[in-house]
Amino acid sequence: MAQNEEHGNGTTNGSAAEIVPLVHKVEVPPKRNVFKEVGSGLWELFFHDAPVDQFKGQSRRKKGLLGLKFIFPILDWITTYTPKMLLADTIAGCTIASLAIPQDLGYARLAGVPPVNGLYSSFVPPLVYAAFGSSRDIAIGPVAVVSLLLGTLLKQEISPTDDPENYLKFAFTATFFCGIFQTGLGVFRLGFVTEFLSHAAIVGFMAGAAITIALQQLKGLLNITHFTTDTDFISVMKSVFSNIDEWNWRSIVIGLAFLGFLIVTKIVGQKKKKLFWISAIAPLTSVILSTLFVFITRADKHGVKIVGHIKKGINPISANQFFLSGSLAAAGAKVGLISALIALTEGVAIGRTFAALRDYHIDGNKEMIAFGVMNLCGSVTSCYVATGSFSRSAVNYNAGVCTAMSNVVMSIVVLVTLLVLTPLFKYTPNAILSAIIISAVISLIDGRAAWMIWKIDKFDFLACLGAFVGVFFVSVEIGLLIAVCISFVKILFNVTRPHTARLGNIPGTSVYRNVTQYPNATLPSGILAIRVDAAIYFSNSNYIHDKILHYLEEETQKLVKSNGAPIQYVIVDLTPVTNIDTSGIIAFEELEKTLKRKNIQLAFANPGALVITKLDDSKFLAHLGSEWLFFTVSEAIQVCTMLLNQSAAERQV
Amino acid sequence: MAQNEEHGNGTTNGSAAEIVPLVHKVEVPPKRNVFKEVGSGLWELFFHDAPVDQFKGQSRRKKGLLGLKFIFPILDWITTYTPKMLLADTIAGCTIASLAIPQDLGYARLAGVPPVNGLYSSFVPPLVYAAFGSSRDIAIGPVAVVSLLLGTLLKQEISPTDDPENYLKFAFTATFFCGIFQTGLGVFRLGFVTEFLSHAAIVGFMAGAAITIALQQLKGLLNITHFTTDTDFISVMKSVFSNIDEWNWRSIVIGLAFLGFLIVTKIVGQKKKKLFWISAIAPLTSVILSTLFVFITRADKHGVKIVGHIKKGINPISANQFFLSGSLAAAGAKVGLISALIALTEGVAIGRTFAALRDYHIDGNKEMIAFGVMNLCGSVTSCYVATGSFSRSAVNYNAGVCTAMSNVVMSIVVLVTLLVLTPLFKYTPNAILSAIIISAVISLIDGRAAWMIWKIDKFDFLACLGAFVGVFFVSVEIGLLIAVCISFVKILFNVTRPHTARLGNIPGTSVYRNVTQYPNATLPSGILAIRVDAAIYFSNSNYIHDKILHYLEEETQKLVKSNGAPIQYVIVDLTPVTNIDTSGIIAFEELEKTLKRKNIQLAFANPGALVITKLDDSKFLAHLGSEWLFFTVSEAIQVCTMLLNQSAAERQV
Repeated sequence: MAQNEEHGNGTTNGSAAEIVPLVHKVEVPPKRNVFKEVGSGLWELFFHDAPVDQFKGQSRRKKGLLGLKFIFPILDWITTYTPKMLLADTIAGCTIASLAIPQDLGYARLAGVPPVNGLYSSFVPPLVYAAFGSSRDIAIGPVAVVSLLLGTLLKQEISPTDDPENYLKFAFTATFFCGIFQTGLGVFRLGFVTEFLSHAAIVGFMAGAAITIALQQLKGLLNITHFTTDTDFISVMKSVFSNIDEWNWRSIVIGLAFLGFLIVTKIVGQKKKKLFWISAIAPLTSVILSTLFVFITRADKHGVKIVGHIKKGINPISANQFFLSGSLAAAGAKVGLISALIALTEGVAIGRTFAALRDYHIDGNKEMIAFGVMNLCGSVTSCYVATGSFSRSAVNYNAGVCTAMSNVVMSIVVLVTLLVLTPLFKYTPNAILSAIIISAVISLIDGRAAWMIWKIDKFDFLACLGAFVGVFFVSVEIGLLIAVCISFVKILFNVTRPHTARLGNIPGTSVYRNVTQYPNATLPSGILAIRVDAAIYFSNSNYIHDKILHYLEEETQKLVKSNGAPIQYVIVDLTPVTNIDTSGIIAFEELEKTLKRKNIQLAFANPGALVITKLDDSKFLAHLGSEWLFFTVSEAIQVCTMLLNQSAAERQV
Repeated sequence: MAQNEEHGNGTTNGSAAEIVPLVHKVEVPPKRNVFKEVGSGLWELFFHDAPVDQFKGQSRRKKGLLGLKFIFPILDWITTYTPKMLLADTIAGCTIASLAIPQDLGYARLAGVPPVNGLYSSFVPPLVYAAFGSSRDIAIGPVAVVSLLLGTLLKQEISPTDDPENYLKFAFTATFFCGIFQTGLGVFRLGFVTEFLSHAAIVGFMAGAAITIALQQLKGLLNITHFTTDTDFISVMKSVFSNIDEWNWRSIVIGLAFLGFLIVTKIVGQKKKKLFWISAIAPLTSVILSTLFVFITRADKHGVKIVGHIKKGINPISANQFFLSGSLAAAGAKVGLISALIALTEGVAIGRTFAALRDYHIDGNKEMIAFGVMNLCGSVTSCYVATGSFSRSAVNYNAGVCTAMSNVVMSIVVLVTLLVLTPLFKYTPNAILSAIIISAVISLIDGRAAWMIWKIDKFDFLACLGAFVGVFFVSVEIGLLIAVCISFVKILFNVTRPHTARLGNIPGTSVYRNVTQYPNATLPSGILAIRVDAAIYFSNSNYIHDKILHYLEEETQKLVKSNGAPIQYVIVDLTPVTNIDTSGIIAFEELEKTLKRKNIQLAFANPGALVITKLDDSKFLAHLGSEWLFFTVSEAIQVCTMLLNQSAAERQV
């Protein structure tokens, strides 16, 4: 590393190949077939998890069995199912049912459909999921955020109060499309679309949605009749305080008392993991107690609003109730698509989280098919969009669930409720359902995650905040839109302005690192080494071209001031450059021309297989001279230093 | 590199730090201020070319002068302008004027405005550009593709034949908004938006547009009156062959004869660079000869369509003719935005190309301001959208242009034409203008570039083909949309599915490379090293997590078959990982948990400054143990090998 030797100022015409026999030659890899090349890219996009690997080298019979298991994951565990597991699943199933039933009644109101449809949605979808889904811990049914989203979007087309019949039909239509889209995304393995919603955006969106949902519950809690249909903070507050005359103190007392009870049990459950069952049965207990209280005191005669009559019986068929043509079909498809994506994002994330906790694998695309089929089945049996519920899944897990059988148990409990117990809910006060929902959605506000995001990445925090503010002050739709846009802007920003670094040698090693991070890293004078930290595409090729020239300019100005020898070699480290396109090659061609005019030689270090193939295909490699392609930055610098010394020696002679 | 030693199968609980004192510690860099962190990102986005660097450390007077020069690049060269340069610029200016005048008449028809507005657009905008623009070689005026685009988009709102007056107003409105958008993009340094249109997409778009324009000229060439307003291939062909009765043989003969002449001179000019002037004066010669011919033979009385009367005089003011409210204003803004982007993409690319040829620098954002101001001035003086013309700029360059003064000379020639010579164009046959346009747009079809794209990158070729097919069979708008979409899909694909590689040691070095590219690279058994070639963000964090586990699974299966020792260390090389967000850290946390359950230790090699800061902020580093952060892959492998040997030795004791 002849750092202190004298270097000449003259032009270096000697070729690297003549002077130093290279230790390591960088070879152009053999050409790949066009279809193979395009194919391998598409393969990574759609099948990166290699779902068919397990089929390889199996007998035909085995392949058939594996195929069946692939479609119906239930076959994976049902053959080894033991009574002990059944006991565990029954306990877990009953626990989540006791949570699900009151939540379903409340969430249905959030979605604008009759309470009984909430119960229906906890009967059919969990059964279907048990057969098709691979998660063992998830609890299926209506969830708060999707119900709110569905309610908001559906109300834009039809009013649930003026035309409840068509509104319900429209909800089934949206559910049907939701199922279609979810199945389609899974079958065509397009599950990666949900990856464009960043963690940060989801945290913000969920928090905003939770508060919005809680605010909506003021209607039930305060017993207000004339409540706004908007969901933003300001409209809700206006609506609450302009209708003070409608407030009912009995309702408020019942609601607040039980809300306090629910929150206390929740905190107890969180503090002492063993007492989690207290928080799990608290909602049902509240429903029973408050219903009894209303029934005994006949508080409903004093204006306390109650759930009222719920039709007995299992899900009626709704297959003939879809809008399949006209503007409502189009609107239904739109609503279906949005709720499909949100339901998937939530559901798949839950599946993944618990799968990681218990060390089994979830195939996102297969899960999407399971969700899709379950919502399709739901849409023809009077259900609205169901997905995995975070709070109920956590309870399920804590209750010691073994397999998806707990969903079947829950289903059966809901079935019994539908067949026998619905009349008992007649005197359940709306206020209690509101209290249950508020206590349920509070856990969607993840302050710790937001704090973590702030600490780790300010731009992520912006996405989080944007989504939150959008949901809170405008609507769930706008919040979602903001979240998606900020996420995209971040991707594009990263793609347009990739990181680049000037490299220097860490003394005592042959390692070259970013001089900003390792300030003691140095380079022999006359040489500039730059690393480009991204694939070079049209979106950043101009920037990279300009940036390299900018580094050169900076260095030259420094050298002019310190009277140092001018730069004669620019080495571009291509280690992280996994790919390059035509724009990138054009940028390098221009760079080479500009540098040549300044008597500077361009050299590349460690190009990847794809990059070297493309440099060769474009004839740029032949133009540059393959001797200027080095195996490592270290070798490139060795050769350049020798050439510099040689030309200095020549000038002295 | 103890590759052939025996390794144990037991769990490794020893800490790396206890056993080997590390040679190089990876330090967490000092915390940066929030504003600095966000600021430096934004700085790179908007000011990566450091436009204010030149102002640093200058006196106040000098700063003022530099500021003036920054706004008016004309001041950069006007003070050192010599008579010799004036001579060169005059020759170049007259040459491009002789090309511009007939082209302007034809392009104006393409845009649907009267021919005289084409001439106006070659008078004011070049003058303005000469003061504000930094390119010395560009020739300003109406261009074919933008004229076609403008014509297509404007016709969607107003018919140029039924309501020519409002159509012209609408054209001025669009030009006004185009200027606003261009200036805005430049002032707010948003020039990078044009970088999202890839080279490949532009090649395809231009070729499609060139053929579309040529097909449109069949109207003039064949003398057809009832010509379709659609631009797609099928409509044009139908229109041509269903109106055979309108064809005029005189017009066809004149058109084809001169088209042949123009193409021959063009080929001569390309083959012998010294004879380029032949191709440069051929269009004007053709116009003069054909006009004389029509005037003498009075072919116009036999149905040959002529340009007709053109109003004498300079540009009238059109500042009061804009639609500034209502739906036409919104439509004008949309058309303005689209044509602004296309005009900028073309204009800035031309500036850049010639700047690279003559080794001076073009600031894209400053150029945008120049284009914007010139179109704003144009819109109030009856011009429509002008930009840099590729063919005329090339002629300008070949004619030996020195500075933007050649645009001023061209302007003066056009002015003289407007004041005195317009009546002479009365008898110019439309067929000759069509012939000139066809011969001009042919050079926009760059077959060599398309071939290069095919060879280098198949996905790029798809973008190229998509844009071409879209323009050719549907419309310029759809072609543009396809080009943009394919470009975006490519970016997103790259972002969602980044490259990853299993690493191996190149024998005889301490270098670790992709084992697919260097098949002789190996690793000691019990260790797996993986490199991730992209910043880890929400869009790819799940994929990277899955991919690492997939590599592990693959390797484990191989080891089970060969009875080898199981993997005990997974080393992730973070060299190319320039940044990580919350989703990425969560993915690594999950990965660490999963690996720990399999008794595998996770280690990182060479994290960048940003990544290490975030790993530290999120407490993940503390959780993992900072001893599992290595300076290089090589050091990580050394330590892991020693630990493996040690545990093997322990088990033997």
